[in-house]
Amino acid sequence: MSLVAQALREAVCRANLDLVARGLVMETFGNVSGVDRDAGLFVIKASGVPYDELTAEHMVPVSLATGLPLESRFRPSSDTPTHHELYRAFPRCGAVAHTHSEFATAFAQARTPIACMGTTHADYFRGDVPVTRPMTREEVDTDYERHTGLVIVETFTTHQLSAEDVTAVLVANHGPFAWGHDAADAVERAAVVEYLARMECTQRIVAPGAPKPADYLINKHFSRKHGKDAYYGQK
Amino acid sequence: MSLVAQALREAVCRANLDLVARGLVMETFGNVSGVDRDAGLFVIKASGVPYDELTAEHMVPVSLATGLPLESRFRPSSDTPTHHELYRAFPRCGAVAHTHSEFATAFAQARTPIACMGTTHADYFRGDVPVTRPMTREEVDTDYERHTGLVIVETFTTHQLSAEDVTAVLVANHGPFAWGHDAADAVERAAVVEYLARMECTQRIVAPGAPKPADYLINKHFSRKHGKDAYYGQK
Amino acid sequence: MSLVAQALREAVCRANLDLVARGLVMETFGNVSGVDRDAGLFVIKASGVPYDELTAEHMVPVSLATGLPLESRFRPSSDTPTHHELYRAFPRCGAVAHTHSEFATAFAQARTPIACMGTTHADYFRGDVPVTRPMTREEVDTDYERHTGLVIVETFTTHQLSAEDVTAVLVANHGPFAWGHDAADAVERAAVVEYLARMECTQRIVAPGAPKPADYLINKHFSRKHGKDAYYGQK
Amino acid sequence: MSLVAQALREAVCRANLDLVARGLVMETFGNVSGVDRDAGLFVIKASGVPYDELTAEHMVPVSLATGLPLESRFRPSSDTPTHHELYRAFPRCGAVAHTHSEFATAFAQARTPIACMGTTHADYFRGDVPVTRPMTREEVDTDYERHTGLVIVETFTTHQLSAEDVTAVLVANHGPFAWGHDAADAVERAAVVEYLARMECTQRIVAPGAPKPADYLINKHFSRKHGKDAYYGQK
Repeated sequence: MSLVAQALREAVCRANLDLVARGLVMETFGNVSGVDRDAGLFVIKASGVPYDELTAEHMVPVSLATGLPLESRFRPSSDTPTHHELYRAFPRCGAVAHTHSEFATAFAQARTPIACMGTTHADYFRGDVPVTRPMTREEVDTDYERHTGLVIVETFTTHQLSAEDVTAVLVANHGPFAWGHDAADAVERAAVVEYLARMECTQRIVAPGAPKPADYLINKHFSRKHGKDAYYGQK
Repeated sequence: MSLVAQALREAVCRANLDLVARGLVMETFGNVSGVDRDAGLFVIKASGVPYDELTAEHMVPVSLATGLPLESRFRPSSDTPTHHELYRAFPRCGAVAHTHSEFATAFAQARTPIACMGTTHADYFRGDVPVTRPMTREEVDTDYERHTGLVIVETFTTHQLSAEDVTAVLVANHGPFAWGHDAADAVERAAVVEYLARMECTQRIVAPGAPKPADYLINKHFSRKHGKDAYYGQK
Repeated sequence: MSLVAQALREAVCRANLDLVARGLVMETFGNVSGVDRDAGLFVIKASGVPYDELTAEHMVPVSLATGLPLESRFRPSSDTPTHHELYRAFPRCGAVAHTHSEFATAFAQARTPIACMGTTHADYFRGDVPVTRPMTREEVDTDYERHTGLVIVETFTTHQLSAEDVTAVLVANHGPFAWGHDAADAVERAAVVEYLARMECTQRIVAPGAPKPADYLINKHFSRKHGKDAYYGQK
Repeated sequence: MSLVAQALREAVCRANLDLVARGLVMETFGNVSGVDRDAGLFVIKASGVPYDELTAEHMVPVSLATGLPLESRFRPSSDTPTHHELYRAFPRCGAVAHTHSEFATAFAQARTPIACMGTTHADYFRGDVPVTRPMTREEVDTDYERHTGLVIVETFTTHQLSAEDVTAVLVANHGPFAWGHDAADAVERAAVVEYLARMECTQRIVAPGAPKPADYLINKHFSRKHGKDAYYGQK
């Protein structure tokens, strides 16, 4: 591995461990990958390795061109083809995090988007976190994990969503995927998706039909933190 | 005790302590047993011992033939006859874990199965985690704990369920039992049952009548992890 | 103080700290007392002392005859007259724990008993944990805390409940009180009340009108652990 | 900085870190400020600084007269103008805490006040924690954070609320603000607001239309702890 790829491996390993530290992981479920587009590869967690044994060596390099592993020591995550499709379709996506975190997965099982109900949501995502359509028998029986990626991409195309404005999705009856600039950013967004799902669950108990905030409030908060007019933070 | 039985005791003790570490135990409630079919015995936690005092010596060996303790130092868990019936009826069951974990017990009190609503569930259980019928006065008044085991077995017979495809059950108005290859596996399944119950509770708040996923998705995920075509993990 | 009273102080102090360790306390709310009927006194936490400064010296001795403090170093808990009335009315009550624990307090605010929905409940309480009637203006304006105790006692009289079978109550729009043989036992029961409230909340989401278990199941579990026919534990 | 201002900085820094310790913070969200009216300034957390790097030096002094920073090392929290308006309108407000804590924010997203349902609430707040009206496009597009403060003040004026009896508010589709005598007090109230929101969520599951407690009970508890007739605690 090049020095660059080794640094990527270490960052992706830290991000995978951060999934656990943030309470987003059940058993060995969940995985983070990160891409190096110049090197033409991404690295992803090996399949089914217990988190307490995880090291940078368990981050498997995969060809961005073919989706095939560039090493044979460890089998990459079974979800690798899903990550691969996201890197292909979303050119500014630098890393992907997948979890079965409790509340976001419950929304996926409810086939219900996480609605943009307030400024916490709008600080991260410009609009609802969408949910995919259910997959067909053909999609599940052949190249299941690749089709999972394709149905995510289709969701963004069909709803005319920008994968830079909305950097997360719920796969119906499965769970959330989130992406960002780098592996740490993708994990932060996966954590925020879980937090937003928790809050919307409570909001639905308190006021099931509560109105959404106005678009101008959502756009204000999103642009406070993102893009050329951002004024949050120290830079 | 033979060396084999001593190793079993230690594994079962670790699994009992793991119940606590995973937050599945309230007070001294809950117990794990593990079987050695060649030796004709299973070992189970002693009754009512505080978890912080628990050692392998508190794992009481019980005859698989008679259900009676093979030692007299400690009284075995009052739930011993329930475990015994499960070992008798389910020939590939290697260990049993019983908890009063919060959400799974709430489903048992609601007399409601934990429905298979997504891939997290299907990765462990091929279909709903069923709930038993309420027990009769006769079953409760005489040999209560043995009848608890028998009503579990009856549930699998009546619903034509495989105890290898679905390795957990809710006893009505009581709580969950889960089983697996060994004690650690049984505890993992007990933890997953709790997690699935938590997610279904949220899903019911968000979308009470949400449709179940298609059978082909459930079968795909179950067979990704179980049986001859499994391709999850490193082997 | 006598040696006996000093031992009582230490046990009650440990129990007060255990309230915090079990997550039953919000800010400085909550208090535990324990009685020494032979010595004619009970000891109770001083009012509003931060838990991280609490020592046995903050356990204030109070006369069982008069309800007045036997020392003047610290002012006893403002809830002292409530504890006093419980000791007077319930002759086998050895200790009282009061919390504002989250779910039990929510049931008190809902003016809804914690129904006996399963064996976890019946292992501790033979029947529902009742809720008092709201207090009148006169009761609140004069001797409020003493009237809080009296309305608890009235609840047991009106509903013909045994304070030995049901060792907890919810004061309407206030919170739970629990009692037991000694201070540790009272705190354990306060913890169980909270756990039962959590489970019933979930059960109501899953199946709002779920039927209660049969009386013979409740009596079976209560008598497995309490009274002359108990067979749970090592004695 | 004067010695006084340095002590204020340290107290406000501790209070900001206490927000994290109490689980009220998501990512870098949330901020606490404290005022020194004699010195004509308040200090507030710098914008977007990770909590694990936070020191007293990150507490930015701001002029009470102009709302502008008195130092240029760090940019103050983007919410600074909101805090400024609260100090201007509420003369006895000594500190302000703002969070996106989970349940209180969910109530803000539900545009639903946290109703005064019991004594835990009344021990801190004499009546409901109100929710602001949604902000207009003009208020959001120009001087958004200042208008957030103004809409809070308007809420207290419109509903004829005392900012000393009710020391917290929910900003619609945003989140809670709480205030108190000093920074530690403001954080304690922010924590209590979250706790009350959690309890009311549960109460609404258990008994959606539960009646509120009588005013005489609320006034009794509020005055047990606040004002000249208080008798809670050691003084």
